[in-house]
Amino acid sequence: MNETPRIRLYVEAPLAAGATVPADAGQVHYLKNVMRRGAGDNVLLFNGLDGEWRAEIAELGRRNGQYKVAEQTREQSDDGAGPWLLFAPVKRKETDLIIEKATELGASVIWPVITRHTNSERVRIDRLQTIAREAAEQCGRLGLPELKQPAPLMDALADWPTDSPGNSPGNSPGGRRLLVMDETGGGRPLVELAAQIAQEKGGDAAILIGPEGGFAEVELDALANLPFVIRAGLGGRTLRAETAVIAALACWQAIAGDWRQ
Amino acid sequence: MNETPRIRLYVEAPLAAGATVPADAGQVHYLKNVMRRGAGDNVLLFNGLDGEWRAEIAELGRRNGQYKVAEQTREQSDDGAGPWLLFAPVKRKETDLIIEKATELGASVIWPVITRHTNSERVRIDRLQTIAREAAEQCGRLGLPELKQPAPLMDALADWPTDSPGNSPGNSPGGRRLLVMDETGGGRPLVELAAQIAQEKGGDAAILIGPEGGFAEVELDALANLPFVIRAGLGGRTLRAETAVIAALACWQAIAGDWRQ
Repeated sequence: MNETPRIRLYVEAPLAAGATVPADAGQVHYLKNVMRRGAGDNVLLFNGLDGEWRAEIAELGRRNGQYKVAEQTREQSDDGAGPWLLFAPVKRKETDLIIEKATELGASVIWPVITRHTNSERVRIDRLQTIAREAAEQCGRLGLPELKQPAPLMDALADWPTDSPGNSPGNSPGGRRLLVMDETGGGRPLVELAAQIAQEKGGDAAILIGPEGGFAEVELDALANLPFVIRAGLGGRTLRAETAVIAALACWQAIAGDWRQ
Repeated sequence: MNETPRIRLYVEAPLAAGATVPADAGQVHYLKNVMRRGAGDNVLLFNGLDGEWRAEIAELGRRNGQYKVAEQTREQSDDGAGPWLLFAPVKRKETDLIIEKATELGASVIWPVITRHTNSERVRIDRLQTIAREAAEQCGRLGLPELKQPAPLMDALADWPTDSPGNSPGNSPGGRRLLVMDETGGGRPLVELAAQIAQEKGGDAAILIGPEGGFAEVELDALANLPFVIRAGLGGRTLRAETAVIAALACWQAIAGDWRQ
């Protein structure tokens, strides 16, 4: 028995006092063989809806197991309020890092977008979902980010949510702002934009990190013509894609997101 | 001949118009075998002192080579003004990532510090120096970060620069502030502290990221008693060490460092 259980696991079943919740084969293996836990040991469970609960391992069989839910340890909070991340997939190692870190930093939606100069291996969303789930378990999130299916950048822009309920009236474009990280140095500092958007009603944003080769002319033209697009900058050095993702999400959360106290 | 040479290389020799500068064996291999360049092709050279220069490859032998320096492309700027990073070494892959990213994000000094709960492989400074040099070449820095030899945290604190010329008088402690990233949620938001320190005369800071297991009691007590130490926070989720490094340096540079325009 652990007084302070450190193992957090994501489950899909509803969580409530006294509920019995199945452990999947991956969790059974992890608990038994990696963490050396057994019946009677404590874990923390979350499902993205019901907050976080302490539960006891009721049974660990060969491939299946069960948790018995005890009491709630944290109430559900609104993970869905986090920034979106759109990124052009890079090499596998760096793409994995982007998923892990965007989850840790509280992105609510992660969306691989294919650009003209995107030169990457096929993105396997199921692999990326596993990475996101493990990062969410480790960092204390109460839900998983939504991993969207890869889409061409132009399709993502065509479907952009410009009619969100949080729209501010007047000359500010409604819906979610798309902050395009601009390597050419032409964008406004991201923290300035974040401070400004945080004061708007709604104040939702998405961050777009382009491919290592930069956007194509036709993409830049399309972006320039969209009312919800703003070019943002992160200083004068050339950041790798994964560095730009982490830096941009951190700056956003610190100024406009849930790192404010 | 490239009109816009994209290869940047760090050299130790002085750079001036017409100077002949040796290429080391690693550069010869990289230029010949990886990048397929030869005599007459252009590169950019920097040495941390003389700015950045366009140079022509004059000769690429079997193991040695020579550049002929043409004209200056950028003047030297003060890389030395960047924040310091102190970090407890983690696993090799993550330590490598920390060095690469801290270089990209403009850290001027990188200092591995050994804490009570640091549980890591031996840190090989020569390997880390190679990583830092390659990151500096790639990101456009004009100099390398100074990589200090690993030291026990307590030794680093005992030698702390509290008498810098930039001291502000009065009750503000002189020298470089040490911002200790606090996982317990007890610290003030890093961006608030950065904004405050940026307004002080001097305004230098170092960021300290502790080990995954946290600081020992004796270390926390020592830190609490030092006038240049401030506890800072990065939101409510548990960040891995390498995420905290990148997030903290990005927030610092955006608010108090050279990402301000």
